[in-house]
Amino acid sequence: MSANKRKVCVVVNSRANYGRIKTVLTAIKNHPSLELFLILGASALLARFGNVRDIMERDGFYPNSTVYTILEGETPTTMAKSTGLAIMELATIFENSKPDIVLTVADRFETIATAIAASYMNIPLAHTQGGEVTGSIDESVRHAITKLAHIHFPATDRAYKNVIRMGEPPDTVFNVGCPAMDVILNIDLKIPARFFEEYTGVGPKIKFNQPYIVVLQHPVTTEFGRGYIQIKETLAAVREIGIQTVWLWPNVDAGSDDVSKGLREFRENYPDSPIHFYKNFAVEDYARLIDNCICLVGNSSSAIREGSLLGVPAVNIGTRQLGREHDVNIIHVNYDRIEILNAMKSQIKHGRYTKSHLFGKGDAGKKIAEILASVKLNIQKKLTYKYDV
Amino acid sequence: MSANKRKVCVVVNSRANYGRIKTVLTAIKNHPSLELFLILGASALLARFGNVRDIMERDGFYPNSTVYTILEGETPTTMAKSTGLAIMELATIFENSKPDIVLTVADRFETIATAIAASYMNIPLAHTQGGEVTGSIDESVRHAITKLAHIHFPATDRAYKNVIRMGEPPDTVFNVGCPAMDVILNIDLKIPARFFEEYTGVGPKIKFNQPYIVVLQHPVTTEFGRGYIQIKETLAAVREIGIQTVWLWPNVDAGSDDVSKGLREFRENYPDSPIHFYKNFAVEDYARLIDNCICLVGNSSSAIREGSLLGVPAVNIGTRQLGREHDVNIIHVNYDRIEILNAMKSQIKHGRYTKSHLFGKGDAGKKIAEILASVKLNIQKKLTYKYDV
Amino acid sequence: MSANKRKVCVVVNSRANYGRIKTVLTAIKNHPSLELFLILGASALLARFGNVRDIMERDGFYPNSTVYTILEGETPTTMAKSTGLAIMELATIFENSKPDIVLTVADRFETIATAIAASYMNIPLAHTQGGEVTGSIDESVRHAITKLAHIHFPATDRAYKNVIRMGEPPDTVFNVGCPAMDVILNIDLKIPARFFEEYTGVGPKIKFNQPYIVVLQHPVTTEFGRGYIQIKETLAAVREIGIQTVWLWPNVDAGSDDVSKGLREFRENYPDSPIHFYKNFAVEDYARLIDNCICLVGNSSSAIREGSLLGVPAVNIGTRQLGREHDVNIIHVNYDRIEILNAMKSQIKHGRYTKSHLFGKGDAGKKIAEILASVKLNIQKKLTYKYDV
Amino acid sequence: MSANKRKVCVVVNSRANYGRIKTVLTAIKNHPSLELFLILGASALLARFGNVRDIMERDGFYPNSTVYTILEGETPTTMAKSTGLAIMELATIFENSKPDIVLTVADRFETIATAIAASYMNIPLAHTQGGEVTGSIDESVRHAITKLAHIHFPATDRAYKNVIRMGEPPDTVFNVGCPAMDVILNIDLKIPARFFEEYTGVGPKIKFNQPYIVVLQHPVTTEFGRGYIQIKETLAAVREIGIQTVWLWPNVDAGSDDVSKGLREFRENYPDSPIHFYKNFAVEDYARLIDNCICLVGNSSSAIREGSLLGVPAVNIGTRQLGREHDVNIIHVNYDRIEILNAMKSQIKHGRYTKSHLFGKGDAGKKIAEILASVKLNIQKKLTYKYDV
Repeated sequence: MSANKRKVCVVVNSRANYGRIKTVLTAIKNHPSLELFLILGASALLARFGNVRDIMERDGFYPNSTVYTILEGETPTTMAKSTGLAIMELATIFENSKPDIVLTVADRFETIATAIAASYMNIPLAHTQGGEVTGSIDESVRHAITKLAHIHFPATDRAYKNVIRMGEPPDTVFNVGCPAMDVILNIDLKIPARFFEEYTGVGPKIKFNQPYIVVLQHPVTTEFGRGYIQIKETLAAVREIGIQTVWLWPNVDAGSDDVSKGLREFRENYPDSPIHFYKNFAVEDYARLIDNCICLVGNSSSAIREGSLLGVPAVNIGTRQLGREHDVNIIHVNYDRIEILNAMKSQIKHGRYTKSHLFGKGDAGKKIAEILASVKLNIQKKLTYKYDV
Repeated sequence: MSANKRKVCVVVNSRANYGRIKTVLTAIKNHPSLELFLILGASALLARFGNVRDIMERDGFYPNSTVYTILEGETPTTMAKSTGLAIMELATIFENSKPDIVLTVADRFETIATAIAASYMNIPLAHTQGGEVTGSIDESVRHAITKLAHIHFPATDRAYKNVIRMGEPPDTVFNVGCPAMDVILNIDLKIPARFFEEYTGVGPKIKFNQPYIVVLQHPVTTEFGRGYIQIKETLAAVREIGIQTVWLWPNVDAGSDDVSKGLREFRENYPDSPIHFYKNFAVEDYARLIDNCICLVGNSSSAIREGSLLGVPAVNIGTRQLGREHDVNIIHVNYDRIEILNAMKSQIKHGRYTKSHLFGKGDAGKKIAEILASVKLNIQKKLTYKYDV
Repeated sequence: MSANKRKVCVVVNSRANYGRIKTVLTAIKNHPSLELFLILGASALLARFGNVRDIMERDGFYPNSTVYTILEGETPTTMAKSTGLAIMELATIFENSKPDIVLTVADRFETIATAIAASYMNIPLAHTQGGEVTGSIDESVRHAITKLAHIHFPATDRAYKNVIRMGEPPDTVFNVGCPAMDVILNIDLKIPARFFEEYTGVGPKIKFNQPYIVVLQHPVTTEFGRGYIQIKETLAAVREIGIQTVWLWPNVDAGSDDVSKGLREFRENYPDSPIHFYKNFAVEDYARLIDNCICLVGNSSSAIREGSLLGVPAVNIGTRQLGREHDVNIIHVNYDRIEILNAMKSQIKHGRYTKSHLFGKGDAGKKIAEILASVKLNIQKKLTYKYDV
Repeated sequence: MSANKRKVCVVVNSRANYGRIKTVLTAIKNHPSLELFLILGASALLARFGNVRDIMERDGFYPNSTVYTILEGETPTTMAKSTGLAIMELATIFENSKPDIVLTVADRFETIATAIAASYMNIPLAHTQGGEVTGSIDESVRHAITKLAHIHFPATDRAYKNVIRMGEPPDTVFNVGCPAMDVILNIDLKIPARFFEEYTGVGPKIKFNQPYIVVLQHPVTTEFGRGYIQIKETLAAVREIGIQTVWLWPNVDAGSDDVSKGLREFRENYPDSPIHFYKNFAVEDYARLIDNCICLVGNSSSAIREGSLLGVPAVNIGTRQLGREHDVNIIHVNYDRIEILNAMKSQIKHGRYTKSHLFGKGDAGKKIAEILASVKLNIQKKLTYKYDV
């Protein structure tokens, strides 16, 4: 560590996390006044969720510290406990690494764990993706993190306004766009041949030169116990439409087990269905994957974020993204096989949408690094609302 | 448990916690549609902070569960870790006791631990004292809890407005006043003779029929490392004024060790100083203690809350209460022995202030219980801000 | 709780655990001077390992408390951490339930977690299966638990002697046999028709009226990293022999992921192989399963214990059971497909062995309950070795 | 780290720990084939127990990692929980530092935490002070650690035999003596003048050129709840004898609070008693302190170990050291003020004993480092007992 550099600690916890922060990691690494301290934790370390660590190391990001924090069970109880565990572990790592700034990504339980450890330890906390509105527990958690964070990097204009309306000082809020957009705007989006070797998964092979659908549907924590029924609706619709499909396994949230159970049963019952199940893709390859699909289905925020920039026709199912700002490429439907099927058909018929810059213009990573290097650091927060006393 | 009753879980973590929630506990216990599930944790279990458990049991409140969660060290690191540990432990207890509502008090690390465990476990969370503005990490944490809570019980009109401005649905916010006020308005405030037997502490005996000062100064977590210097200013002022003084030990926050070190050194150096050190008082006795003092000094919120209702002349030192709504009984000063001394003299000269109902009228406990029994429970939150799309 | 009854806390953590202690649970429940306090934890709560909880509840055993303690990852690190986590959690449960005796089963990480929590909390600790010799970390852990336990229930004569030679007072060591034997001696061992409905698993259906093999091979923690290669040898041998096979998924030990990976790959590559994969069986059904098989293969202690009583021809692979006392029904082989294949052929040719009572006569459960009800409880241990001073 | 060096991780948790391992740390640091990785944890980080960290840093030992693991409460429950917490934390540190050997000291809860984390992580474990016999939970824990350890460094001939009798392979057991003896044999034992500045404590000043007593009495965990009564007996005896006394605060074991309460009450009641209370001494200074005293009183093992080498007349109270091998300098008494007083008088009258080498000859540190550098490392343990099969 150079005495003149600000040491920025970033905690990466999952494949989604990594995609949302990758260009920031690069920009920090390349910035003359910043030093990157990288922690890998949670599902980023688990084989079950694909080798995120391997993908990161291939990109040149080696962790300074790793920490296991996922308590098995995938229930609301284990989610709470994993949060507590992550706080305890991260505090020890912060104690020993002494970062100048901690940067936390989005709205997951690992994100708030990072936020709480940093806050209580008087380490200035920066936060990306604050101010957006969604469903699930993520909605509560995202805004709670905003109230703990000292530096805010919202991704849209409306999110920027929301953060300020919640009482954050405007000079700590920076509308920089979403770093996930940066990735997309700087690569060739053709599906490369190596796809077939690199990503194996299970199920019949996908022919990427022919039309295919992509599905990614996570559990909704606030609807815990209903994931099995919900995923069966999506499976029925996808089976009915009969087009080859790339299906990604869900994340580690409470209820993941229910979703997986539905997927596994489907595989046993319909082994010949043209669905190939994957665990994980490199960030750029995921962009390629959805850019070339004819319809993106599920409840991942990537349909709204990356999807809008790429103009991908997308069907958003259920409440997980409810209320999230989005562009015209999205059709919202309920957990209902008929609604899902009809929306898929309609989107496939419509085809590609115009590209939208709602979530940024591709320079978020650099802007964030620049701000982290120069922003005044102050740990005492204060609600900004004024009253006539 | 009766099938018809709502089971309300309250986690009491310290003497201050208990004072702020006692009348709510009573009201829940007495309510025909509510069942109380009481958890005792953190410093409420530690002899070092006085026997809060004993005091509660004398009041008829026996814990359904106890849980040790304070990691020793009193540094920012251990505060973070204690938060994580409390989440893990509370999750197991919630898992086994299945409350319908969890009620969390104010803004401490145990409070946010309770909030996070309940939130992720889809248990509706009620919160008292939201919307107030102060210094210390409590400021961040209080508002973060508001963003996690489903039912809000702010104590003042301004706090009520702040909670709504932060984006909480107005029909979930109830301006009920502070339960700590309830206690005061229902008791005889004379200092009873039994004081001398019940509270021993260390140092020369206090003559409660003669003028005395009360001091209570906690560490400020966001100023960690400066507590020793800060407390020496207060000690110098109190020594200079030469009036007999009741001094309460600080709470368990990061920096407590520094404050205690200052107090202990003072005791060694000035064993004959007319200062008596106490660990704890019963809730009602603390009210009696400050109602009869000539000046309340330090940075406890009790000067602002109970103090305003009682009209106690008070000197508030430093940043811990900075920005908190208060009435005319407060003089703010810096960590400076001259400023503190002058403010004390000025307040003693002024004498008693008019009683203020800024923090409530004495019916908060009953109102809260009533609302808990009848309010619609809903776990999916959503920021209320509207935009023209 | 009756004031006159001894409250015996038993922590059940896995399907294996339950089979080894079931008749003790029944005997405690039925004993007039004992009260059962049942904790369910670790993999007994995880769907991935079969619904042990459901099986237990069908048997009439409802947990007084449940606790999630498995940190995901299945590495040596997560095994250590899961041990630490279990200690912390169990301590809180013991604190709140105040058992008179804690009973811990065998030699797993949950077992030593239970032992340490009870020991430090001055709760007399009883232990089953002490004094046996094996491979894996279980070998170290088993003897460490013996040194913490106050009451010993070894299962064989040699184990009894070993416990005493390690310095335990002979009047605290009781050679009662293994409770797992009790189960077998009291049931009809025919495979019932309901098997087909109750246990689904994945893979081609097993015809239980025709010859079949059973395989159960766990990871060896002290050989972490080699599980994938090891399981491939077994899979190759089983594929070669071509007989229909019941295969049970491995337990949660470090390396489980490697074993599972091997199994999953095999399933993808040889979907038509006559192997059916199961997660779990009820205790009695597992006995039926192996009693009717023509060969039991792998490294489970059940081949040695239940296998000897039933006279099941068994092939024990590798080091996990190395050194464990056994009868003539076992052939030991290395991780080598040829050795495994030859041993299987040899055992199938040999057929059934004479039943052996090496591990008990079927009354262990009752004996253990009787001793728990009457034994003198003393928490201060002392090494018994004598020296001329 | 050099690729050719063995990385030896030592976890130091308290002042006592440090004294017992200091010369080993030096020898590892100086050994050409070893690299020291030093972890500081538990009470070594707490101001309440004296600044062990400061003392170590003055000696040139800077921690590679620090970790807070003491859960406050000082009850059997918190002791168990602190053990669990330490396992979790140490596992993360081991994961990130990858030591070749872990060395753990003696018999405390931090010691077994270290042992369990290393064992499950397949890291060869070395252990000092195995095979000794005492009271308290330490007795159980010490032998449990022996059963987990791969390399044993007992301090006496009898301890050496005990370790082997417990079933450890003789070629892994090395009778090297106690490293604490090394310290003593290499220093000038005169009390230096700087004592008065360096160690402040509380109470009347000690005149080190006049006769003084040293008292150090820890809680006995297996007698939890009786510490307050027990310490009052010792205090009464010391008060009666009326000689100036250096009194050290007890360690962090369960019951410490009771002992401290007794000491604090005594201080309030008899402020003029010629007793000076200290928290901590540098290792060498503690040796000087007891070498120059006329009687060492309490239940610390230092009376038996260092005391025998120095020939210090000592009174051992109660069960904590019961059964521990010792020399003639010890008189055992019960928790009884008369017995204690009489034994003190008798020892003071007797004066200095002949020096004994029961616990080593001063070369333990170097021997241990040499063995750590050259011993064959093997993680699979196996009970050595032989039987005719």
